[in-house]
Amino acid sequence: MVKVTFLKLGYIGATTLIDALFDERSSRKNITLRVISSGVKMSDEEARDTANLAVTIPTDLYIVVSPNASLSGPKIAREILKETGKPIIIVSDEPSRKTLKKLPEEYGYIVIYADPMIGAKRALLDPIEMAVFNSDVIKVLAVTGVLRLIHTEIDKVIEQIQNEVPPEMPRIVVTKTKAMQYSGIENPYAYAKAMASFEAARRVATLSTEGTYKVEGKENFLPILAAGHELIRYAAKLADEAREIEKANDTVSRVAHFRNGNLRSKTKLFDTYKK
Amino acid sequence: MVKVTFLKLGYIGATTLIDALFDERSSRKNITLRVISSGVKMSDEEARDTANLAVTIPTDLYIVVSPNASLSGPKIAREILKETGKPIIIVSDEPSRKTLKKLPEEYGYIVIYADPMIGAKRALLDPIEMAVFNSDVIKVLAVTGVLRLIHTEIDKVIEQIQNEVPPEMPRIVVTKTKAMQYSGIENPYAYAKAMASFEAARRVATLSTEGTYKVEGKENFLPILAAGHELIRYAAKLADEAREIEKANDTVSRVAHFRNGNLRSKTKLFDTYKK
Amino acid sequence: MVKVTFLKLGYIGATTLIDALFDERSSRKNITLRVISSGVKMSDEEARDTANLAVTIPTDLYIVVSPNASLSGPKIAREILKETGKPIIIVSDEPSRKTLKKLPEEYGYIVIYADPMIGAKRALLDPIEMAVFNSDVIKVLAVTGVLRLIHTEIDKVIEQIQNEVPPEMPRIVVTKTKAMQYSGIENPYAYAKAMASFEAARRVATLSTEGTYKVEGKENFLPILAAGHELIRYAAKLADEAREIEKANDTVSRVAHFRNGNLRSKTKLFDTYKK
Amino acid sequence: MVKVTFLKLGYIGATTLIDALFDERSSRKNITLRVISSGVKMSDEEARDTANLAVTIPTDLYIVVSPNASLSGPKIAREILKETGKPIIIVSDEPSRKTLKKLPEEYGYIVIYADPMIGAKRALLDPIEMAVFNSDVIKVLAVTGVLRLIHTEIDKVIEQIQNEVPPEMPRIVVTKTKAMQYSGIENPYAYAKAMASFEAARRVATLSTEGTYKVEGKENFLPILAAGHELIRYAAKLADEAREIEKANDTVSRVAHFRNGNLRSKTKLFDTYKK
Amino acid sequence: MVKVTFLKLGYIGATTLIDALFDERSSRKNITLRVISSGVKMSDEEARDTANLAVTIPTDLYIVVSPNASLSGPKIAREILKETGKPIIIVSDEPSRKTLKKLPEEYGYIVIYADPMIGAKRALLDPIEMAVFNSDVIKVLAVTGVLRLIHTEIDKVIEQIQNEVPPEMPRIVVTKTKAMQYSGIENPYAYAKAMASFEAARRVATLSTEGTYKVEGKENFLPILAAGHELIRYAAKLADEAREIEKANDTVSRVAHFRNGNLRSKTKLFDTYKK
Amino acid sequence: MVKVTFLKLGYIGATTLIDALFDERSSRKNITLRVISSGVKMSDEEARDTANLAVTIPTDLYIVVSPNASLSGPKIAREILKETGKPIIIVSDEPSRKTLKKLPEEYGYIVIYADPMIGAKRALLDPIEMAVFNSDVIKVLAVTGVLRLIHTEIDKVIEQIQNEVPPEMPRIVVTKTKAMQYSGIENPYAYAKAMASFEAARRVATLSTEGTYKVEGKENFLPILAAGHELIRYAAKLADEAREIEKANDTVSRVAHFRNGNLRSKTKLFDTYKK
Repeated sequence: MVKVTFLKLGYIGATTLIDALFDERSSRKNITLRVISSGVKMSDEEARDTANLAVTIPTDLYIVVSPNASLSGPKIAREILKETGKPIIIVSDEPSRKTLKKLPEEYGYIVIYADPMIGAKRALLDPIEMAVFNSDVIKVLAVTGVLRLIHTEIDKVIEQIQNEVPPEMPRIVVTKTKAMQYSGIENPYAYAKAMASFEAARRVATLSTEGTYKVEGKENFLPILAAGHELIRYAAKLADEAREIEKANDTVSRVAHFRNGNLRSKTKLFDTYKK
Repeated sequence: MVKVTFLKLGYIGATTLIDALFDERSSRKNITLRVISSGVKMSDEEARDTANLAVTIPTDLYIVVSPNASLSGPKIAREILKETGKPIIIVSDEPSRKTLKKLPEEYGYIVIYADPMIGAKRALLDPIEMAVFNSDVIKVLAVTGVLRLIHTEIDKVIEQIQNEVPPEMPRIVVTKTKAMQYSGIENPYAYAKAMASFEAARRVATLSTEGTYKVEGKENFLPILAAGHELIRYAAKLADEAREIEKANDTVSRVAHFRNGNLRSKTKLFDTYKK
Repeated sequence: MVKVTFLKLGYIGATTLIDALFDERSSRKNITLRVISSGVKMSDEEARDTANLAVTIPTDLYIVVSPNASLSGPKIAREILKETGKPIIIVSDEPSRKTLKKLPEEYGYIVIYADPMIGAKRALLDPIEMAVFNSDVIKVLAVTGVLRLIHTEIDKVIEQIQNEVPPEMPRIVVTKTKAMQYSGIENPYAYAKAMASFEAARRVATLSTEGTYKVEGKENFLPILAAGHELIRYAAKLADEAREIEKANDTVSRVAHFRNGNLRSKTKLFDTYKK
Repeated sequence: MVKVTFLKLGYIGATTLIDALFDERSSRKNITLRVISSGVKMSDEEARDTANLAVTIPTDLYIVVSPNASLSGPKIAREILKETGKPIIIVSDEPSRKTLKKLPEEYGYIVIYADPMIGAKRALLDPIEMAVFNSDVIKVLAVTGVLRLIHTEIDKVIEQIQNEVPPEMPRIVVTKTKAMQYSGIENPYAYAKAMASFEAARRVATLSTEGTYKVEGKENFLPILAAGHELIRYAAKLADEAREIEKANDTVSRVAHFRNGNLRSKTKLFDTYKK
Repeated sequence: MVKVTFLKLGYIGATTLIDALFDERSSRKNITLRVISSGVKMSDEEARDTANLAVTIPTDLYIVVSPNASLSGPKIAREILKETGKPIIIVSDEPSRKTLKKLPEEYGYIVIYADPMIGAKRALLDPIEMAVFNSDVIKVLAVTGVLRLIHTEIDKVIEQIQNEVPPEMPRIVVTKTKAMQYSGIENPYAYAKAMASFEAARRVATLSTEGTYKVEGKENFLPILAAGHELIRYAAKLADEAREIEKANDTVSRVAHFRNGNLRSKTKLFDTYKK
Repeated sequence: MVKVTFLKLGYIGATTLIDALFDERSSRKNITLRVISSGVKMSDEEARDTANLAVTIPTDLYIVVSPNASLSGPKIAREILKETGKPIIIVSDEPSRKTLKKLPEEYGYIVIYADPMIGAKRALLDPIEMAVFNSDVIKVLAVTGVLRLIHTEIDKVIEQIQNEVPPEMPRIVVTKTKAMQYSGIENPYAYAKAMASFEAARRVATLSTEGTYKVEGKENFLPILAAGHELIRYAAKLADEAREIEKANDTVSRVAHFRNGNLRSKTKLFDTYKK
């Protein structure tokens, strides 16, 4: 039984379902999952507080999920967790790349390029707009291989821990090419559509950042932020279109967790899973 | 400063973003949020363990989110939390209705009818299928008023706690009519589309339950489960179509949290928020 | 030459084209069809009157199509037709199920679950809304196997009559599973989409019944009825999407009547029909 | 009480629901409707037979619906009905135009240009393809004003008969411009979309005629017929898009029958009907 | 090195990209292209002037592209070019058919049926409407085989000139059947969709002509012209749908120019081109 | 009468219709347009040759359109045209920005950010793929304000020349914000959709450049190039969706050329144009 604890500070798209990726039907016998989160906040204090809670939980592997892992909150959190001596994997978004690549080798990390910041200005953002945006991001992450990559790579670490092998930490920058390798998409045009979806999502990040931080005046930033949200909606549509092609060809790649935690895969819906 | 702790046991659609609903831009000064979760599992042991962790957190209001709150896991959890003497609100799905309506008056509850169970058979469900399904459910919950209802009603409790008024616990069954009252949709056809989306989502629950528990043989249950997932995809499309009409009319209702936690609303995108 | 007389009382979706199903190109040499209808009305008097007309027509097989065959109009009609001693098959919708299952064995019946009642309140329903609704219902019935089932099963009876074999009366409740067996859909996702379409259509019936009979006040029933009509529109879209997948794979199942009344089938568009 | 008898010989799109247009909710007190049909066949014999049946029904107004009213079947039928001395209105498709315009003034007629012939070759047409095609045609006829024109103009005659005024027979060629006048569509682009739908449907007739009668060889006629069916599918989509715009603007024109047979209209969904 | 000079007088859809069709990647070593155009005007004077310029350019083959090649402008132009003794191919739209078929045999021609006139009334047409219309026309011409036909047939002439063989002039009326032979579409339903797109585009021409020249009064001609533009939008959608099916099946036909001007083709995206 | 000569070297999206923008109905009395083009090629030699031809044409204003105006071909061309002493405006794409901003003040320029390079590898690009891509680009340029900006700004220069005023040369970098100012879109969500379309198109340029020049191996560059083409398809869809909203609200901005060259505008389709 491997014990995995997720520490979530603030929100990126991957935050919402990351723990569920490891036991999609709630049937695995070889892991226990715990999640501690500070909700949307990720200040130093919130980070310290939740990390201090996380260290009290019996854990074999910590996974820290946050926006921009370069900020001091996430940094404080991983330093507190580091004290436990347990392996730590950091999952974050594109602005984290430089910082994470420089982390000592014992940290694992997964830097996701297509998990864009939301348009974080009150003029656009209310709870419903926020939820709609995340719905779209999740679809992009699911179809373009990002979520598959996350669970596959961390599943390897879990298995190593279970087998008492020193775990090899993933140190992955999830570019469009890297993500798509995990997408399992067979049709070349569906593949291109998913990649286009990924790139559109990445562009959303640029728009959200520009509109949230760089542009003054509601009449200026609001169209830019709203454009970002329109673009993520279309990125989700592109992802959906890609998946629909795979369905139409009965080539949807499925890789499911079995009770013992093993992953097996199949392609045709009525196939039997195989190693 | 009101301290709200979410205890999440297993997953329904509302689980994914429920805490983020209360501070969509991470700007509120009057609340602190904590989330404890056992991931997808909700056995007695998991429930006990996480509840015991939750009680260690300084908290003014507990919100317990789980599928089927009639099960013993969620029951154990709420009994442990009850010991703290703090108010508890339970958020769960349709199968919880009878149980929750019978709970003592000090419990609040929100029973959501359009938050369907997933098709929980390995033949269909892998982590990607799970994420895609949740993406669709989130869109339905967002547009049909469910998420607005959740945060509005619980925001009232938070405000009462902040004002040191004895909180009035919400005891709400979120039927299609109840949800839609919170949707803010103005165009009558968009309203009907959103309601249709809600009903389609509710039908998904029937299909998932039938396919997961009542039908034997992959050749029999697999089409039923897959039909449920196709139907939620269309429920999300209907929700999207409803919202697009509101956009086209520039009548999207926005109700945002201000720094002090107050909710203000506006309709036209370039409007200023008003009480 | 087998003589078939349809008696239509009131309207369900199947009413509109049921006789045309038996001779789609107007080329069969072995049947003569007659239709008597009272239009939308189905009172006792209308039923008696049209049934009395129907018995004057030389007929080998009567097919009575109406909403809710439990009502007294349809009952009167079938009793009048019974006097002729000719075989009778009743085609009706879900509310007829109990009544029809209890009918003596000499009656055949086909109870269709996905042929929903229309939202029958003046506030919503004018002739155009009615026609649009029926257009959608027809598409659902066509793609999900319902119309194929109807003509296939009744074609068997016609053939038995032609061969002077005592006809075996169909006694079929057309559930989603039953209907789909006749759909001829090969791709498993298209199959699931069609099944989802069927289920959505069935849900429409619930909404129409609720809005027409159970809810008071235009502000209350109108959204519910309109939601039903939005849902049937999406059920038709789902059916269309399913058929488009089959087209894209060149696997549309075609079963056509030949001049002698035999059915032959093919799958690829440029194939030749085979027995 | 006005007694209207429909004689249907063979099928055009308008055949399917024409009688239902006059009492969409089955609530009118001032008319009785009867339908006699020969199904898809329209030979001289079928026409004579059904017309002879129709003359036995007490009738104040006959409406004869058939493809190509120039053919001898429909001609025989109207001559038989003529004997009754009752007024007769003929509803048919574009190929009937010349013949109908030459009929004596006591006949009324409605010639519909956008009610295309089906692709009537076995290689394409089976009962399901037939039903799908008709579903699309009905949507076009409903949205583009054709069905509104039919019932409005015949309702006038019914009212005149009820008032014992000598009825003024409609003699109408339903061109795109004529049809659209009855569509009630307000938005000018929706209006143009509906007109485009009408024209596309008219083009389908050309394709069906070419493919069914003028081209030899399956490899030659099959693409043409299938193109016609694809085009009607898009005509229906265009009609749907037009209606959706009217919904989004809450300007769907509704003209409903009241119990006494009067037509009243409204535009906003929650409006009250007015004369 | 073959020198090809395009003389463009006025605009049809094919005008926009016709020269680019011959060297899509700007890599051919065996041709030089020149284009002379008078923009949208095609009066006698404009035609004479530009033709006189064109004759000054060293040219092995002239291609004259214009609307209605029966008009005097295009006629003047081709007579001036004729003086050079160089081969001339005329590309024009449906109204040119009779004139072009009567031209002496030394002229080549390509008459395109699905390249419709725009709705040329100021009430509808501004530069943006014009560009949107052309965008749609280009998609129709591209997918339905028209553009493939143009370059394939003219490429043959270019090759003959290069090989110093007396060129065989194409004399082609591009009907729906002729165009589709060049479309390379494999799926029979995609083929039918593309053919339907072609026919819809042809219908646009009728609407544009009617609205521009035959109908008086803005309230009369504007809906007709707008209907034409809506119909071309749907023709483009149909073309897109056809191409998407081919993509989903990985059967998009590609025929590319190699450096030496040879055409090679492939079907699967990752295939290698073959002769 | 102002004489404008376009010199087109190679292709960007704006190349295809730029001259037609100035006289959309071919009705202006105050300008004469000439176009000289080298087709897709833009080498020094092609540039020199066509520029030398262009200088022979009586011209009041030269407009040079090409990809990357920093390359030597376009540079040579503008130097040759410079000799005439006539005003020159350069229209090019994003890579030209730096070079054009450094040009002496007498040059005008318009640098378009959303006119992306095509995926210029043979493995993807054949003439049909090229045309489909351009169709999509044109729609983006039309709806997002780019084409309006081009003709509006150059129309000012034409007017100044006509009035014998020294023309003020446009020196404009068409960013998303700049373009959208010319889009005339009123609905804020449609505005955001169009801006998202612009940004997606800009991202296409990145993908095309990467896939064409920076990545080796068909298996690597082909998905990237195809992703670019999928993304431009969705950019066109977004643009279309934006325009459809404006249609649904009857707020499509139209600015048409009158016979004397004046621009007048209107918003409602049935409005009369006003200054």
